[in-house]
Amino acid sequence: MSQDAYSEGDLRNTGMSLRHDREWDYELDRIIDEIEERDATKVGLQFPEGLKRRGPAVADDLRELCDDDVTFLLSGQPCYGACDLDTYLMRRTDVFVHFGHSPMKESDKIIYVPLFSNVDPYPIMEESLEELDDPDENPDVGLVTTAQHMNLFEDMCEWLEERGYEVHTRRGDDRLTHEGQVLGCNYASADIDADQVLYVGGGKFHPLGLAMEHPDKNVVIADPVNNVVTIADTEKFLKQRYGAVHRAMDADKWGVIFCTKIGQGRWEIAEKIIEENDNAYLITMDEVTPDRLRNFNMDAFVNTGCPRITTDDGPRFHKPMLTPGEYEIAVGNKPLEDLEFDTFHGTW
Amino acid sequence: MSQDAYSEGDLRNTGMSLRHDREWDYELDRIIDEIEERDATKVGLQFPEGLKRRGPAVADDLRELCDDDVTFLLSGQPCYGACDLDTYLMRRTDVFVHFGHSPMKESDKIIYVPLFSNVDPYPIMEESLEELDDPDENPDVGLVTTAQHMNLFEDMCEWLEERGYEVHTRRGDDRLTHEGQVLGCNYASADIDADQVLYVGGGKFHPLGLAMEHPDKNVVIADPVNNVVTIADTEKFLKQRYGAVHRAMDADKWGVIFCTKIGQGRWEIAEKIIEENDNAYLITMDEVTPDRLRNFNMDAFVNTGCPRITTDDGPRFHKPMLTPGEYEIAVGNKPLEDLEFDTFHGTW
Repeated sequence: MSQDAYSEGDLRNTGMSLRHDREWDYELDRIIDEIEERDATKVGLQFPEGLKRRGPAVADDLRELCDDDVTFLLSGQPCYGACDLDTYLMRRTDVFVHFGHSPMKESDKIIYVPLFSNVDPYPIMEESLEELDDPDENPDVGLVTTAQHMNLFEDMCEWLEERGYEVHTRRGDDRLTHEGQVLGCNYASADIDADQVLYVGGGKFHPLGLAMEHPDKNVVIADPVNNVVTIADTEKFLKQRYGAVHRAMDADKWGVIFCTKIGQGRWEIAEKIIEENDNAYLITMDEVTPDRLRNFNMDAFVNTGCPRITTDDGPRFHKPMLTPGEYEIAVGNKPLEDLEFDTFHGTW
Repeated sequence: MSQDAYSEGDLRNTGMSLRHDREWDYELDRIIDEIEERDATKVGLQFPEGLKRRGPAVADDLRELCDDDVTFLLSGQPCYGACDLDTYLMRRTDVFVHFGHSPMKESDKIIYVPLFSNVDPYPIMEESLEELDDPDENPDVGLVTTAQHMNLFEDMCEWLEERGYEVHTRRGDDRLTHEGQVLGCNYASADIDADQVLYVGGGKFHPLGLAMEHPDKNVVIADPVNNVVTIADTEKFLKQRYGAVHRAMDADKWGVIFCTKIGQGRWEIAEKIIEENDNAYLITMDEVTPDRLRNFNMDAFVNTGCPRITTDDGPRFHKPMLTPGEYEIAVGNKPLEDLEFDTFHGTW
């Protein structure tokens, strides 16, 4: 955008004529600045699955704010997390915007837009206090959230402190960008000295993982999106995992999945399994889907990639799929009591 | 494999103790030679979808014939054609074997094993003569086949010539490796001076494309795999295409798919569409599947990638999906009579 065009009609902060939805902050200003600074002509946009339908309206708004010679490309690759970074599109565009997740890979041309939510979390946090211990008896509480609410994290800490709590927070490990952040595969930010943790965020995906990883802690869910307070209950989750392990105990031929996505490669674990088991075969892929595995004539699979595909999507696969730890139990190397949640640490 | 181990027990040509099936020639000798020559320790194997279940047995046989330090990795990426080359696995292995298709991309470390079929084509070719014109009246016939039967192509030509036919063959264009070869997306080898073409091979996928691309020719199918002779009939295929074009005529928002696979990028076509249509949005992806498109809120799609996904899988998508030529008809730039089969020419 030339300076002339810019001064003629800067709609950036008016909210006028813009077609994108207002539930999330797409940070159009920041994107436009970056496009102008780099004289970008090809701009890639990657949205999480649930927001892909909003992509065209966001592209429309950006087109309005840019020179005509800028082409926007929407990533059609599946996107459920930071690991799903569309590296193909990233390499072939001047500016690449990944919405909804915090950085897994840093690069000059990638803009990470966390999509901060515009929802007010305090009414539902107020309700959630009923599920936490009385601060006079047990003031220690952990606080965690997702990328969408990170902008309010310090505010939320203060809010709890004002109500008499001693809030324990932690940045976690290298995989986590922010203090108090959780990922589907990493709950190191909840390794804190409190036996109750408040999770503020939408859905049960994260708090269930948190409760599996920290079975000794009471995980209270304050969900401002669905406006509901619940306690994370891992019983169904655990039963499903025990069931998968038991069904896999008779397996002869094992497919060992090595996921080629950024942030998911655990080569040493995969290699160790195939070295020790002559009936284990290494299979490499990016998306791990039931369709792709159906054509392999295996009795069971062990997935060294994303643990949440194994545990949450497990029942959709035609054969039992286990985490590496669960595999050790199924082949008899470890006792059933050792079953634990599979997490990822460090970066790629 | 050291020379010692090699001389101790070379099972390569004995057929003893080997677990792989015998319907196809996996050319294990050639693979082993290449592994030894390169001192490879990581070997990638990629099979077409229909033969993925045979992969572990082939890997077992190769393991038996190699040093212990060689690790075999099976590609779990979908594979329906030469375009589906698993470039990730290729880049990360010392030797990469792609089974079942002829080369789309040449590289030192890729071994293309065409998987020549062991089936005898002559009995079914004998039967197919009844569907060809009497050679005394019309001796001109084209002959085409797929990678699986290329090893017999010259033999089959001679066989027809011995029966009084004048056989017309052609290498086609750069996309085709062999004289007389057809691909799902390219029938240039049938651009010959004969109004009848004999296709020898399994299934109707190729001859249907051939008949669509050459509607003036009678396409006789001699299928030695299913042991049946038929005539390619494009009526159902055409009706389905006309239906898709009609349903797309009301579309407002168009998703323009740019496929990132090797050999499928038609950037100029995609770019032209979005430049001319403000309601068209560029979407990039490798696998084009119904799941991936469902989350985009579009009224119709135009696929600049593999035409066979558009035409053969079209009905599986929730919204009409057209080829670039069909799109021009749907938006009114061309008359319905211009509908023709979409093919790919040249290499990537």
